Amino acid sequence: MTLPRTAATFAPPVMEARRWLEGVTFPDKRPLINVSQAAPVAAPPEPLLQHIADTALTNPEAHLYGPVLGLPELRTEVATQWSAAYTAEIAPAQVAITSGCNQAFCATLTAIAGEGDEVILPTPWYFNHKMWLDMQGVTAVPLSTDAQLLPDPDHAAALITERTRAIVLVTPNNPGGVEYPAELVRAMYELAKSRGIRLIVDETYRDFDSRTGAPHDLFGDPDWQETLVQLYSFSKAYRLTGHRIGAMVGSVELLAEAEKFLDTVTICPNQLGQHAALWGMQNLSHWLAGERAEILDRRAAITDNMPNLAAQGWELQGAGAYFAYMKHPFDMPSDQLAQQLVRSHSILTLPGTMFTPKGDQAGKNTLRIAFANVERAGIADLFARLATVKA
Amino acid sequence: MTLPRTAATFAPPVMEARRWLEGVTFPDKRPLINVSQAAPVAAPPEPLLQHIADTALTNPEAHLYGPVLGLPELRTEVATQWSAAYTAEIAPAQVAITSGCNQAFCATLTAIAGEGDEVILPTPWYFNHKMWLDMQGVTAVPLSTDAQLLPDPDHAAALITERTRAIVLVTPNNPGGVEYPAELVRAMYELAKSRGIRLIVDETYRDFDSRTGAPHDLFGDPDWQETLVQLYSFSKAYRLTGHRIGAMVGSVELLAEAEKFLDTVTICPNQLGQHAALWGMQNLSHWLAGERAEILDRRAAITDNMPNLAAQGWELQGAGAYFAYMKHPFDMPSDQLAQQLVRSHSILTLPGTMFTPKGDQAGKNTLRIAFANVERAGIADLFARLATVKA
Repeated sequence: MTLPRTAATFAPPVMEARRWLEGVTFPDKRPLINVSQAAPVAAPPEPLLQHIADTALTNPEAHLYGPVLGLPELRTEVATQWSAAYTAEIAPAQVAITSGCNQAFCATLTAIAGEGDEVILPTPWYFNHKMWLDMQGVTAVPLSTDAQLLPDPDHAAALITERTRAIVLVTPNNPGGVEYPAELVRAMYELAKSRGIRLIVDETYRDFDSRTGAPHDLFGDPDWQETLVQLYSFSKAYRLTGHRIGAMVGSVELLAEAEKFLDTVTICPNQLGQHAALWGMQNLSHWLAGERAEILDRRAAITDNMPNLAAQGWELQGAGAYFAYMKHPFDMPSDQLAQQLVRSHSILTLPGTMFTPKGDQAGKNTLRIAFANVERAGIADLFARLATVKA
Repeated sequence: MTLPRTAATFAPPVMEARRWLEGVTFPDKRPLINVSQAAPVAAPPEPLLQHIADTALTNPEAHLYGPVLGLPELRTEVATQWSAAYTAEIAPAQVAITSGCNQAFCATLTAIAGEGDEVILPTPWYFNHKMWLDMQGVTAVPLSTDAQLLPDPDHAAALITERTRAIVLVTPNNPGGVEYPAELVRAMYELAKSRGIRLIVDETYRDFDSRTGAPHDLFGDPDWQETLVQLYSFSKAYRLTGHRIGAMVGSVELLAEAEKFLDTVTICPNQLGQHAALWGMQNLSHWLAGERAEILDRRAAITDNMPNLAAQGWELQGAGAYFAYMKHPFDMPSDQLAQQLVRSHSILTLPGTMFTPKGDQAGKNTLRIAFANVERAGIADLFARLATVKA
């Protein structure tokens, strides 16, 4: 008997971690530091709230069905800003708006892979990517990464079979934090192109990249759309996580296939959220620069506080986007350690086991620290607590 | 080589029909009557708009991630109102909120079926159901219906194999308009229960059912949740199509499986839309009664205008929800007829071929008339035009 598709995968890890908090009381002197998930915790800036409210009151269309592939004005805005940012010519017809970036991934995969196909994911991976592949009968082929969490194109090449449909990169990386060098992204692209498969680049955290200028030059290729699919989220930049708006950039033909999936699953992205994203793109670039500066300062706080922890045997493998990825020095699997840290140090992190294949050694001795919501003082406190851990 | 999942299915029919309008100009004296799709065309009532705007301005949480299975208050409201409406005890934990009713169907199917499984769909079927099954490698087994578009439980029984996972009913029906008698729904439920499969009842149009009281008594069974999954949409009742909010009611165990899918595809339903649906449920029952009366009056206009058309050989097979389903008298496949009607009579309908398996005879001689947005005078005009059609 065939198992239902969802039986092939695991329960959402963030929810499992949340259950570890149940029944635990935290001392007043040592409140919980929750670095299990990093998403905006405050509302969007006031003018954007006002724009959403005004749109709700004055634009009847914003309450009704819209095009499956998204609001034309938003597709055009993405195409225009991306063309400038990547020094490329991206057409509105090459942009689709989705109900969040996760859905952009699901739509892309459904449009390029079938039962029994394979997709290469560098590890540690983003668990929702793994979950979708599991549910779709597509084998996630793990590509291990080096001490800096970077994958090797030669290793990737060795994993490609006739069933391989794509290589997926997340840069800046979730969970690893690492920003992939442009040359690495280019090398992966050339590999994918030469083997006739897709390169999917998830740039959910592009607005918080520490580098200036384009993080890769792939869109400059005249035939980028034959190989590249780029994914994006409006959730982090404009604090719109509750509105579920993402995007995918790819060939018109790919988007026509993705459209079947998007029409069937959600009909269209919700309209108010699209108007919010559009207004954010057109009016909040200065504000977003401040948000980025704050995230980069918190990232600096991670490296500033690292020496004391390194003295205890900890190692920082990656720091960027919203995440630091750490190797712990204990002879204890990370999922056990993470649960112990809740009770012993009032710290909730996600263990590397949640981002790696079962039994993977690299997952056992790592933790993801989602630092984006913690201020400098909190990061210092977090590191001071970690320095006292004896497993 | 395996085909990508989307290659197994067709492009969204509503968009194909929209393309038939391209390049066609309509005479001033005979403007287009578009009965291809019926969805609200006006904004929600003013107080609901105000509530959405107020929520956007004053509730920061409404912009941030919420629980995967939806806003607890909305789940509770559905449970409470459903328990009263169906004279049953439905718990909030048995209700999940989804990004529209299509997504509720996708989540349910992914939680109960795998590659090569089978699901029974009465024909004419709702095309997005067929599309999702195609994309998921699940065989849609057509169950033909009688002259009143009602399926026969004995026929359904004969179609069940060891791969069958569910029977899907849509009542009131899209595209057929027919309201399934409670005894028929009960018979299908008993069949599903006796064979250990699910009965999925899509009640998207329940708020426009012409009958008073519960349309079926299945929730009264103490173990309904082992067999029944009910789907619902907030889009039609409160004119919230652009907000993408639906619901599924089923066992806690099924919802835990569906949660994997929902988390992976969209993380959570958009929050403002959920607040809108909640406010609508709590404050718009009187308003909704008026909406229902108007739809029922338009439905009456269909039957009132039918005699003249019947004299030309047309037959009304079903009328209810937003739809009338008609048998045309011409020796011409419905997809050709539908395209001809655009040019010759300025009428856009969807042909039965869009709701039936390839080559199905019942699809060839039928049309769906989505009448919900057309006032009485428009319906009279539509029928007068149809009466002059010579194929």
